[in-house]
Amino acid sequence: MLVNGKHYRTVWMEGHTVLLIDQTLIPSRLAIVSMQTHQDTARAIKTMIVRGAGAIGAAAGYGMAQVILEARDPKVQRDEFIMQGYHALRSTRPTAQNLFYALDRVLSVTKVITDIEAQENAAVKEAQAIADEDAESCRRIGEFGRHLLKPGMRILTHCNAGWLAFVDWGTALAPIYAAHRERVPLTVYADETRPRCQGAQLTAWELMQEGVDVYIVADNASGFMMQRGEIDLVITGADRIAVNGDTANKIGTYEKAVVAKENGVPFYVAAPYSTFDLCCPNGGHIPIEERSQDEVLFFTGWTEKNEFSRVCIAPAGAKARNLAFDVTPAKYITGIITEKGIMHPGRPRNQTK
Amino acid sequence: MLVNGKHYRTVWMEGHTVLLIDQTLIPSRLAIVSMQTHQDTARAIKTMIVRGAGAIGAAAGYGMAQVILEARDPKVQRDEFIMQGYHALRSTRPTAQNLFYALDRVLSVTKVITDIEAQENAAVKEAQAIADEDAESCRRIGEFGRHLLKPGMRILTHCNAGWLAFVDWGTALAPIYAAHRERVPLTVYADETRPRCQGAQLTAWELMQEGVDVYIVADNASGFMMQRGEIDLVITGADRIAVNGDTANKIGTYEKAVVAKENGVPFYVAAPYSTFDLCCPNGGHIPIEERSQDEVLFFTGWTEKNEFSRVCIAPAGAKARNLAFDVTPAKYITGIITEKGIMHPGRPRNQTK
Repeated sequence: MLVNGKHYRTVWMEGHTVLLIDQTLIPSRLAIVSMQTHQDTARAIKTMIVRGAGAIGAAAGYGMAQVILEARDPKVQRDEFIMQGYHALRSTRPTAQNLFYALDRVLSVTKVITDIEAQENAAVKEAQAIADEDAESCRRIGEFGRHLLKPGMRILTHCNAGWLAFVDWGTALAPIYAAHRERVPLTVYADETRPRCQGAQLTAWELMQEGVDVYIVADNASGFMMQRGEIDLVITGADRIAVNGDTANKIGTYEKAVVAKENGVPFYVAAPYSTFDLCCPNGGHIPIEERSQDEVLFFTGWTEKNEFSRVCIAPAGAKARNLAFDVTPAKYITGIITEKGIMHPGRPRNQTK
Repeated sequence: MLVNGKHYRTVWMEGHTVLLIDQTLIPSRLAIVSMQTHQDTARAIKTMIVRGAGAIGAAAGYGMAQVILEARDPKVQRDEFIMQGYHALRSTRPTAQNLFYALDRVLSVTKVITDIEAQENAAVKEAQAIADEDAESCRRIGEFGRHLLKPGMRILTHCNAGWLAFVDWGTALAPIYAAHRERVPLTVYADETRPRCQGAQLTAWELMQEGVDVYIVADNASGFMMQRGEIDLVITGADRIAVNGDTANKIGTYEKAVVAKENGVPFYVAAPYSTFDLCCPNGGHIPIEERSQDEVLFFTGWTEKNEFSRVCIAPAGAKARNLAFDVTPAKYITGIITEKGIMHPGRPRNQTK
C-alpha cells in the first residue's frame, strides 16, 4: 500500500537481497532494511523487524530462496548448508504456522530438480509466488468485505490486521482500503490496543498513509461509542480460527464482540482461509499465551526529540497479568471474511441496526 | 488508610494550614504539601494536587475555613474578603458538586454568628465535620459492601474510587479494605484505565500500601478474564447516578458491566448517597465530557531515573477521540452500595454464578 504516496510491500526480494520495512520503527519513521544473507533475514524475523502472519511467511520464503542461492558457494557443502539454513530460519519463531509452510514449500520445489541453476530459479520463483499469493488473498478479502461498507460508515478495528502484518492490503483493513480507493467515504476508529498499542502505532499509521480518515480511541471508549450509535461495523483480524468459528485474536477482541452484539453492531473477522485450524474443534482448545508483565507496567514511545523512551506507568514493585490473546466464541461473530467469500459460523442473529 | 504503615487522610487541617497528599506525584513518591492560605488551597484544587469528589469537597471546606480565619487581618475589609475567597475557591472546578456543597455549608454556619472568634471556631468545626462525614460514609460503604466478599474472591475494579478520591476508605475499594483488615484473603485486578491510567497509578498504589494482593491488567484483558471464570465480582465507583440507577463513571465502566452480565459476574457500583442526582431521570440526561486528544496520543510516566517523561504513542499528526466518561444502564448493575445500604435499581437478574 501507499507510504508517502509511493507503493510498498512489507517485504520483497531484489537479486540475492531481501528488503523489509522495519516495523519496529513505525510510526516514528520509515526505514527499508536490506537483508544480504539468509542469516540476516532470520534475525529480522526473530527481532520482529518483520511481524504478522503473512509478512513472516513471505520473509521466510525469501530467506529460504537466499539459502539456495548462497549454497552455490564452492566453500560450502551444499546439502548440509541448505538444511542448516532451513533450520536457522525455522527456529526464529517456534509457533508461526506460515513460517514453516513457506520454508517447506520453497525447499520442496528444489528437491525434485537436479540442476543447480534450475533449483535456484525454482526457489526464487516459489518464494515470489508465496508473497504474491498472500497479497492476492488479502486483495480478495478486501473485495468480498468491501461490499459490507456503505458510504459514511464508521468502522471500528482492533489491533493491527493491516498490510504491515501481510505482504500487501492486510485482512481487517483490506475492505477499508478497497472501499477508500473507490472513493467511498468512511471513518475508522482504531482501538489503541494496549498493552503493545499496535492500533495506535501501526493501524493508524497505515490508514493515514493511505489517506483514510482515522481516529485513535482508548480501548475503554469503543464500547460506549457503540452504545451511542457512533460505530456501524467492527472488523478485526484473527490469529487462529477453530472449526466451529471460535476465533483467537489480540486481547480485547472478545469484549468488543460482546458489546457489539449487545448493541446490534455487526462484528466481522477477516482472515485468509489458512487461519482456520482444522485440527481445532473449538476455542477451548486454543492455548492462550501469557506474556511478560513488563508490557503492561512499562510503556515505550518516543519523546519530542523523536528518541525512543521507556516509561513506567505503575508503582515500583507492582505486579501485572498480561494475557496476550483471547477467544471470541462464534456466536458473537456475524461473519468471517476470507479470500473465498464470507462465512457465517455463528448462530443466526437478528441485527436490528 | 496506610502509607508505609502509617495512617493518612488525603486532606486535613492543622491550625491555619491545609495539608494534602500531592496526587500528581503518586505513585512515584509520597509528598505532603502545605497550603498556608486559601489561595494555595484553591490552586491545589485547580491543578489536581487534590482530586476525587470527596477529597475536593473536604479540601474546599477547609479552604473556606481558611478564608474565615484570614479575614481577621485588620488590613482587609472582612465581608468583601470572605466573598472574594468563596468565589476564588468556587471557580477552581466549574462542575464539582461537592465543592459547592462544602463551600456553602461552611459559609452558612458563619452567617448566623456575629462574634468573630465564634465564627472562626464554627467554620473550622464545620469543615472538619464535612471531612469526617465523608470518611464515615465511606467506612459504612465498606461495611455494607464487605459482606459481598467471600474468602478467595477475585475482584475487578476500574479507575480509582479508593481513599485518594475521598478523605479515607474510598468507595469501590472500601469493602476490599474492610474485608482485608478482617484477614479475608482477596485478589484484586485493577484495570489500568487508559487514557489517564488511574487504575495502574492510584488504585494499585493504594492497595499495595494497605497490603492487598493486586495485579494491574490492561483494560482489554479483564473481559476475557471474566469469560475464563477468573473474576468473581466487579466493583466500581460512580461520578453521577440518575434516579433510575443509570450510572456515569470513568470511560470503560460500561464495557465491563456488559461483559460481566454476559458472564453472570455480579457488577456493583459503590458511591455515597450524595452521588445520586435527583434532578436526573436517567442516563440519557447526563452530559459526557470529551477531553483533549493528547491524553490518548501521549503517555506520561517516569523513567528509570524517576523523572517524569511524556512519550508519544501515535504517528505524528494522528487524531484521537477521548470520551472521558460513559453511562452504564441500570439493567447491568447488580447493586449500588451506599452508606445507607445496598440498593438494587436494575431489573431482576438471574445470576448463574
